[in-house]
Amino acid sequence: MADWIAVDWGTTALRITRMEGGRPRETRESDRGMNTLDPDAFEPTLLDLAGDWIDGPTEILACGMVGARQGWAEATYRTVPCAAVDGDLTRVETRDPRLRVSIVPGVRQLDPHPDVMRGEETQIAGIVTSLDDFEGVACLPGTHTKWAHLSAGEIVSFRTVMTGELFATITGQSVLRHSLAGDGWDEAAFLDAVSDTLSQPELLTARMFELRAADLLHGQEAATGRAILSGLLIGAELAATKPWWLGRDVVITGSEKTTRAYATALSAQGLDPKLLPADEMTFAGLNVLRDA
Amino acid sequence: MADWIAVDWGTTALRITRMEGGRPRETRESDRGMNTLDPDAFEPTLLDLAGDWIDGPTEILACGMVGARQGWAEATYRTVPCAAVDGDLTRVETRDPRLRVSIVPGVRQLDPHPDVMRGEETQIAGIVTSLDDFEGVACLPGTHTKWAHLSAGEIVSFRTVMTGELFATITGQSVLRHSLAGDGWDEAAFLDAVSDTLSQPELLTARMFELRAADLLHGQEAATGRAILSGLLIGAELAATKPWWLGRDVVITGSEKTTRAYATALSAQGLDPKLLPADEMTFAGLNVLRDA
Repeated sequence: MADWIAVDWGTTALRITRMEGGRPRETRESDRGMNTLDPDAFEPTLLDLAGDWIDGPTEILACGMVGARQGWAEATYRTVPCAAVDGDLTRVETRDPRLRVSIVPGVRQLDPHPDVMRGEETQIAGIVTSLDDFEGVACLPGTHTKWAHLSAGEIVSFRTVMTGELFATITGQSVLRHSLAGDGWDEAAFLDAVSDTLSQPELLTARMFELRAADLLHGQEAATGRAILSGLLIGAELAATKPWWLGRDVVITGSEKTTRAYATALSAQGLDPKLLPADEMTFAGLNVLRDA
Repeated sequence: MADWIAVDWGTTALRITRMEGGRPRETRESDRGMNTLDPDAFEPTLLDLAGDWIDGPTEILACGMVGARQGWAEATYRTVPCAAVDGDLTRVETRDPRLRVSIVPGVRQLDPHPDVMRGEETQIAGIVTSLDDFEGVACLPGTHTKWAHLSAGEIVSFRTVMTGELFATITGQSVLRHSLAGDGWDEAAFLDAVSDTLSQPELLTARMFELRAADLLHGQEAATGRAILSGLLIGAELAATKPWWLGRDVVITGSEKTTRAYATALSAQGLDPKLLPADEMTFAGLNVLRDA
């Protein structure tokens, strides 16, 4: 049985965790993400995966794209600047009377440029709670990396950069896929490339085709090419976000591999970022939000 | 019957033209590009499409990926700096004794960065011939846009930027596809975006997700989003290639739509580029190369 169930329901994946207070006890995963489900399919999908955890009234708190307009129920965005920890959750009606489901609203920005997040606001609540009212910049690398300026317990502003999705799309779909296969890595080539586009971001798209030509003409290793592409993209992202991180305290919260890449890149610029695992911040965030 | 047959055989398409001297008389197209064919399938594919044009010995001159290692026969690259018009063609053995097939070699660059072209060297031969030993920069926009510095009848150096492929991949595969569907256009938004990344190229990847957010939050039109994405990418390309085009004579040779976009963008920077249709330059190039 569960005290409550933490649910991270994204576009392409569903992950549920049986919780005892703030502690995860067991996690189950499914590929039944938001984009595979009609609105009335969310409840049976959750029951399929969590069924034996539910014995009597059960609190379920979900974050992510599950709260989008095309999700289970729309959880209307809060607008920055707004509290990092806010207990205004969206309650979802269920057919099964044992379920007490709430969804964490996403956060939007109207000015100085339009932006949205769903899911990362929960990790930010976890960061602010875990680091005792952290002041600085949270970098949440992933498919759509978020940079959030946090001050006085508020999300002041944020910026999304599509670095992860661009890397996946270019290595998976473009002509470079022939030269960048596998999952190898070349740390020195990565750091050189970060430095290149951080200082000359205008070269990002011009440098990409070199990866194909270097393979054709010099047999450049795929591992080197992948690391260079990643470095070029992250370097360009750091150039775009320099006003955010320069001279600030930075915390990075992502999967292990992407966190390491961003940490290495920022450390090479003289920063000393704190690293917090994404799943722990999701649990910490959901736990603080259910009591907020 | 044909004096000779001009063949433009790329990765995804085949186009053959019955020629009388330098004049195209009839063109046929097929989707049997290089990447659909084994080496011994090229000859029957050509005979299928051109059969009734061939009555006795027929000269056939081909350019494009047909000369790649995975093509009909490898036409070894020439290396820049090299003559823009060079008669050193690669002869292909055929089973049908009536066919006299040659392939135009591609051009490679070893220094200052690796780069390759196959097909554009033929258009460049056409440009240099048509514009009476043109001196300046040729911009050949397409899937992989080429910028070539031409001087004293030579290709001095060149640079490939994957702008066309990035636009197609991002609008077709990324999350932005939901917000950029259709083929609409917004010229003012395009020019603003060109200006934005020409002056601040570091914002290229950071600005992309705004297109999704502007749709979700403000219902931004897909036509506007597409024009902005195109403008951001072309602006970044112009930032990367500024040392190439600034203060130089520029000729643009591409399809009608992409040529117009690049011409508009460069004109907004005070340039007055010459425009030459890509297909005409291919015919002119093949015609001058067969006699070179």
